[in-house]
Amino acid sequence: MAQHTEDSIKRSVAPAIDPNILLNLYTHTRNYSLQLCQSLSEADIQAQSMSDASPLKWHLAHTSWAFETFVLKPFIADYQEFDTDYDYLFNSYYNAIGKQYPRAQRGLLTRPSYHQVLDYRLHVDQRMQSLLNQLKDDSLNKASLKPCIERILLAVNHEQQHQELMLTDIKHLFSFNPINPKLYVDNNNEVSANCEDKLIDSQQAASVCFQEGLYCIGHRDEAFHFDNEGPQHQYYLASFKLDSMLVSNADYSEFIDDGGYQNPLLWLSEAWQKINSEQIQKPLYWQKHQSTWFEFGLSGLKPLKPNAPLKHISFFEANAYANWKGKRLPTEQEWEVAARSQKPELKQMFNQLWQWTSSSYSPYPGFKPAHGAIGEYNGKFMLNQYVLRGGSVATPSGHIRPSYRNFFYADARWQYSGIRLAEDN
Amino acid sequence: MAQHTEDSIKRSVAPAIDPNILLNLYTHTRNYSLQLCQSLSEADIQAQSMSDASPLKWHLAHTSWAFETFVLKPFIADYQEFDTDYDYLFNSYYNAIGKQYPRAQRGLLTRPSYHQVLDYRLHVDQRMQSLLNQLKDDSLNKASLKPCIERILLAVNHEQQHQELMLTDIKHLFSFNPINPKLYVDNNNEVSANCEDKLIDSQQAASVCFQEGLYCIGHRDEAFHFDNEGPQHQYYLASFKLDSMLVSNADYSEFIDDGGYQNPLLWLSEAWQKINSEQIQKPLYWQKHQSTWFEFGLSGLKPLKPNAPLKHISFFEANAYANWKGKRLPTEQEWEVAARSQKPELKQMFNQLWQWTSSSYSPYPGFKPAHGAIGEYNGKFMLNQYVLRGGSVATPSGHIRPSYRNFFYADARWQYSGIRLAEDN
Amino acid sequence: MAQHTEDSIKRSVAPAIDPNILLNLYTHTRNYSLQLCQSLSEADIQAQSMSDASPLKWHLAHTSWAFETFVLKPFIADYQEFDTDYDYLFNSYYNAIGKQYPRAQRGLLTRPSYHQVLDYRLHVDQRMQSLLNQLKDDSLNKASLKPCIERILLAVNHEQQHQELMLTDIKHLFSFNPINPKLYVDNNNEVSANCEDKLIDSQQAASVCFQEGLYCIGHRDEAFHFDNEGPQHQYYLASFKLDSMLVSNADYSEFIDDGGYQNPLLWLSEAWQKINSEQIQKPLYWQKHQSTWFEFGLSGLKPLKPNAPLKHISFFEANAYANWKGKRLPTEQEWEVAARSQKPELKQMFNQLWQWTSSSYSPYPGFKPAHGAIGEYNGKFMLNQYVLRGGSVATPSGHIRPSYRNFFYADARWQYSGIRLAEDN
Amino acid sequence: MAQHTEDSIKRSVAPAIDPNILLNLYTHTRNYSLQLCQSLSEADIQAQSMSDASPLKWHLAHTSWAFETFVLKPFIADYQEFDTDYDYLFNSYYNAIGKQYPRAQRGLLTRPSYHQVLDYRLHVDQRMQSLLNQLKDDSLNKASLKPCIERILLAVNHEQQHQELMLTDIKHLFSFNPINPKLYVDNNNEVSANCEDKLIDSQQAASVCFQEGLYCIGHRDEAFHFDNEGPQHQYYLASFKLDSMLVSNADYSEFIDDGGYQNPLLWLSEAWQKINSEQIQKPLYWQKHQSTWFEFGLSGLKPLKPNAPLKHISFFEANAYANWKGKRLPTEQEWEVAARSQKPELKQMFNQLWQWTSSSYSPYPGFKPAHGAIGEYNGKFMLNQYVLRGGSVATPSGHIRPSYRNFFYADARWQYSGIRLAEDN
Repeated sequence: MAQHTEDSIKRSVAPAIDPNILLNLYTHTRNYSLQLCQSLSEADIQAQSMSDASPLKWHLAHTSWAFETFVLKPFIADYQEFDTDYDYLFNSYYNAIGKQYPRAQRGLLTRPSYHQVLDYRLHVDQRMQSLLNQLKDDSLNKASLKPCIERILLAVNHEQQHQELMLTDIKHLFSFNPINPKLYVDNNNEVSANCEDKLIDSQQAASVCFQEGLYCIGHRDEAFHFDNEGPQHQYYLASFKLDSMLVSNADYSEFIDDGGYQNPLLWLSEAWQKINSEQIQKPLYWQKHQSTWFEFGLSGLKPLKPNAPLKHISFFEANAYANWKGKRLPTEQEWEVAARSQKPELKQMFNQLWQWTSSSYSPYPGFKPAHGAIGEYNGKFMLNQYVLRGGSVATPSGHIRPSYRNFFYADARWQYSGIRLAEDN
Repeated sequence: MAQHTEDSIKRSVAPAIDPNILLNLYTHTRNYSLQLCQSLSEADIQAQSMSDASPLKWHLAHTSWAFETFVLKPFIADYQEFDTDYDYLFNSYYNAIGKQYPRAQRGLLTRPSYHQVLDYRLHVDQRMQSLLNQLKDDSLNKASLKPCIERILLAVNHEQQHQELMLTDIKHLFSFNPINPKLYVDNNNEVSANCEDKLIDSQQAASVCFQEGLYCIGHRDEAFHFDNEGPQHQYYLASFKLDSMLVSNADYSEFIDDGGYQNPLLWLSEAWQKINSEQIQKPLYWQKHQSTWFEFGLSGLKPLKPNAPLKHISFFEANAYANWKGKRLPTEQEWEVAARSQKPELKQMFNQLWQWTSSSYSPYPGFKPAHGAIGEYNGKFMLNQYVLRGGSVATPSGHIRPSYRNFFYADARWQYSGIRLAEDN
Repeated sequence: MAQHTEDSIKRSVAPAIDPNILLNLYTHTRNYSLQLCQSLSEADIQAQSMSDASPLKWHLAHTSWAFETFVLKPFIADYQEFDTDYDYLFNSYYNAIGKQYPRAQRGLLTRPSYHQVLDYRLHVDQRMQSLLNQLKDDSLNKASLKPCIERILLAVNHEQQHQELMLTDIKHLFSFNPINPKLYVDNNNEVSANCEDKLIDSQQAASVCFQEGLYCIGHRDEAFHFDNEGPQHQYYLASFKLDSMLVSNADYSEFIDDGGYQNPLLWLSEAWQKINSEQIQKPLYWQKHQSTWFEFGLSGLKPLKPNAPLKHISFFEANAYANWKGKRLPTEQEWEVAARSQKPELKQMFNQLWQWTSSSYSPYPGFKPAHGAIGEYNGKFMLNQYVLRGGSVATPSGHIRPSYRNFFYADARWQYSGIRLAEDN
Repeated sequence: MAQHTEDSIKRSVAPAIDPNILLNLYTHTRNYSLQLCQSLSEADIQAQSMSDASPLKWHLAHTSWAFETFVLKPFIADYQEFDTDYDYLFNSYYNAIGKQYPRAQRGLLTRPSYHQVLDYRLHVDQRMQSLLNQLKDDSLNKASLKPCIERILLAVNHEQQHQELMLTDIKHLFSFNPINPKLYVDNNNEVSANCEDKLIDSQQAASVCFQEGLYCIGHRDEAFHFDNEGPQHQYYLASFKLDSMLVSNADYSEFIDDGGYQNPLLWLSEAWQKINSEQIQKPLYWQKHQSTWFEFGLSGLKPLKPNAPLKHISFFEANAYANWKGKRLPTEQEWEVAARSQKPELKQMFNQLWQWTSSSYSPYPGFKPAHGAIGEYNGKFMLNQYVLRGGSVATPSGHIRPSYRNFFYADARWQYSGIRLAEDN
């Protein structure tokens, strides 16, 4: 579910930030969204492959709507909306703001056109830049600027989250096309633009031990973070072991060859129903051609790399694989403690693949929804979803931190999700 | 269901035709398909509003595929396909030719791009024009040309059928957009391009009487027609009466105001379930704003015209309305006999709205499927569909003839369908 | 769909009938319903295997409700209903009489108990017998009795129709039980009670020819019949041929062995989707055990009899088989003309298996719904269903006549339906 | 989901127990299952109201199958099964033992008959009693008996869990019947058999405070418990407050009257979809007649008691109500700590209503599945379900303990579930 990107906008704490840095951050973020669409046609950014994914054009418009709704309207007195219809068309799910166009039909909104959406972005950018320049005025009371800066930071982070979704959504769309379209064309002479090339090969995993104890969990400094990363709190953990490496494609092939998908004893009850009713027998983007595995990626269809970390895997599959190995998934607290430990043995922790934890997504002890419109729905998605940690190669690097909590339904596979195993000590 | 357009290609009889006329016909037909897309963006022609409708880009490619598959490949010895993948992507449902890309996912095929589809059309056009020019060679044996001309005529008629679907499909797509996009912008200074402007107002209907007798039904001359229009056969009819006019919007408003949609006694059992489960309370494109009816059309949202003939109505609604009036729908044989009678009282018979008949779509007595690949599936759609007659304002005029049989499921509403009532005498 | 049994009650013409005969008919009919349940437990008559089938207890109650509603209440001035709740519980679909308990949940009505339903039947029987005895009074004006007699005849015929459904519904229920329960236990020393034993073996079929002409179709004498069997009307038929025999199990095995279920060219488009989505590869009650075919029947699981006529077949399957044989199904008019011809070559025409025709169920020309409550919904089911003719071994013998029209959806298989093929001449 | 009852059998620790006590326990448990069916007809115990519920006859057979499969077969050398078909018919979901009859179709198994199922129970009882008598033999090695006693205790507890489901399933079935059947007829002169009469009225709730600390969670003595109640482990809790009383019907009426079901801001995202798509506007068994609330119960339809604790509520509803009150649900650890505290202010903690916690059902730290057949599926249901604590009036009293974890999907309403609110301190 892409909803988490929305959720996050409502829960954050803004740090003190230099207005010049903020303007740079804004400009860079906004440009990058357009850059992602550079090689794509109007058709590519219009289509919607499933209800959980959105057209890229919609992402472009919705992220602009977020600046308009949560920054420009509240902080510019006489702000004129670009188009009053957009409140209905590009509101994702904020019931307090009004009704929303049905999510599953976003691909039918061929109007406003791409051109109009670009105009919309320009309109927002101009007003945002003007606002950001005003913030530089030294004569202003710094304290009075804080709410505005906080909102801007939020909306920037929100757009960055959508950038990851833009990549996973276009990949999902292209995967339905039998001619295997490419977002990125290989170019040996240049540094690759394809984030998938940043994946580091897995090697033989070692078990890394952690002691029992009362640990501190959650965000702990002044830097930007989302509300669901806090409040910081104590959590008691028994001793445990964590694998130093992510599970590789070769590892998972053994599971397949051993009949993993045919053995009900490895699967959760719901998972077993799902893989049978949808005839799931392999990871989402794997294809077998004449007994050789290939994998569909942002550069098209390629032979499967055995040592690359396994990706686009559901919680169901991750859990079944762990059972087959006689291990288990880590809890999100275990993962965070390990990540903070900075032990040198631990590899591929950040910015490689989101790592499924066994933790159901729920509020931390003492979590309080923010007051006002933005915080009104805290916890709206805290049900039946599972936490992932670590960030992926598609995640904007500014988002990478030990406390970051991503969450998806147990059957979701279109995100850059992988497996790291744990054990009791 | 748009399937009928496919069906028709397999069943036709080609007349003798002058090759120059054929070339003109070909060129005009091909151009008109592009003309229909003139004011549309790549996004507009990419989106698919439901499984029964197709993206316009797909129509453009599929009609070209039909020329390639049924004319160029069989009649040009060394013909090189434009792209061998297209046999899978743009085959609608010919199992004998091979597997087909799932109908409901046509909107996800953002590649080949619009540009590539236009290239595909050009490729086909060049080879078709060359073939058509060869046919003019007087030294050729006319008889030997017949199969080729027959196929060309078929494929031309096939593309014309798709042109009607392009209009109904884009209208259906736009109807999901709350900002009511327009295919045609009103322009008072020019002749309207909007076929909907060709609808003639209904007036007070009279009952026109027809005598009992053994009538001749079905296609009866050498002009082009589809196989399902024949064979010509005798059919006994008791005397009957037919209304001289189509039911108007005002007529149907009375039905609504009288609680027609709330009275189970007027509806077929399946219809009653359908309108309740989908909460249908009005014709497909009607909208009520502050107690005034509006209608969405190819020129956007307009106040409902009371005297215009009622359109976009299902068989279910047509039948319920007939029950409410104490009348009935005509059989397709009654309609054809009336149409052939050329009685001057009878208005709006042709090229206005498809008129629902009470006849289930089934083969005429003595109907034999054609031999060979093209005829293999005759009757594949002759189940649970109902016949419409007369053609609509969106129907290419060359298709208008008394024997022409269109057919759709009883709940279909996105075609230009209307109501003419009949009675026993 | 069992709806046809309801439909029929509303459309009939009552003949002159001797009151003593009527009393006998009534008594015999009512007893037979109970007899059908004789070997069954309360659990057996409570369960409902699908929405189209009903629990036998519900049939017992509903047929009594029909006498109460359509005879006792209108014709006995001070009639006291047995239980006013029953109008809701046991009304099948008469919207004019009131709301109905949801069809799919009839199996959940464990109360009223079997015992209470038997009391209900007794209550109705006592009052009906008293009414029937009054009708014998010679001093009464015969003409004034006619409406009452007509209704009684209707309700008797209605209960007889439900008796066939009771057999097909219990068979369907038992077929879900892996231990293959038997309604009838074999008993070699007695005449079998199992109607399935009355099936006559098929032999080599001959083609029987019929001349073209204007034929008279529909019910033509004063005997009881349902409204949908009339009005009698003229119908023009071209010459045709009809097989003298029903298709046998051995015939159909050849179709299966030849890959009939895997060949899309033989199937209607909807049929092909259905057999694929539901993985249909054989007739409903066939089971293969170690490469030998067995068939589940009212006496349990038995080896398939090759020469027995093929039964429990859908219109879809019948049509595909006909295509495979290069023949077709007869129209209902052809069937009726053949049946009336009494040609000696024609075998297994009546009381063996319902024979699918290619005719969509629709009103005969000039058909008028009866006035008043009973006739209000004429034609309610005249959509998307196909006509079967001839009656089956499960059909009460009084119902067998050339004009009788049964009708079911094209995918229905739980009735005693079979195949007789036709050809153009 | 009733699956938890199955789950539990696989995970338990058996205490030392006197064989005479065990025989008494066995006999009492087995008799009580039959007692629950005493006033019911064969039809009542045959019907299945939904896939999550089972027919009572199936419960009677399945619990016997559990003794046969997990006790008699492993521990009696020459044990003869009552009927080998039963392994397929009455296996709930143990894939290692073999395939299972589809859960949703259990109501179609009218055979074996009630009588045969009673014979089955008798067969099992005789062999179990004989086995239990052997255990009394003082010459036996106590240690060698332990595995057998452990299994017997498990199977007894398993049957007790099914007894609660028998009550909730029959109540659910009866609720579909518009004539409101009663399991128990009121009898003022006798002690009521209706467990619902044991509900204690709620009064004004007070907030009870608990200190932060490292608490011990999970089962902690030798008495019988299920595996999922352990291992005992440390858990850090911040200070919190718990309401002393369950939420009452009157409390919840205020929520309804305040538009609680219409306010999206109170509901989880999935919950909001659910209550809208299923039009849920009130607790499962509430009915409004002429603006007065009634509640359907085991003694039929009765006026709603304002002070009685609110029951048959989903997690979704519980969570929305908590939001409306500005409070939250307790975690399962908070609930357990409170329950163990034995603070006198705390009322209605045990044996009244299952109390929803905010905790997703997941394994305790260090949890290890048992080895062998019985333990093979540990954790199979540990996904997307939420923990309830405390037991209900329908729960066998032997099951009541602070560590007992029940679990259901967030939308489940047919169990005796209620609400107790918590707050941060």
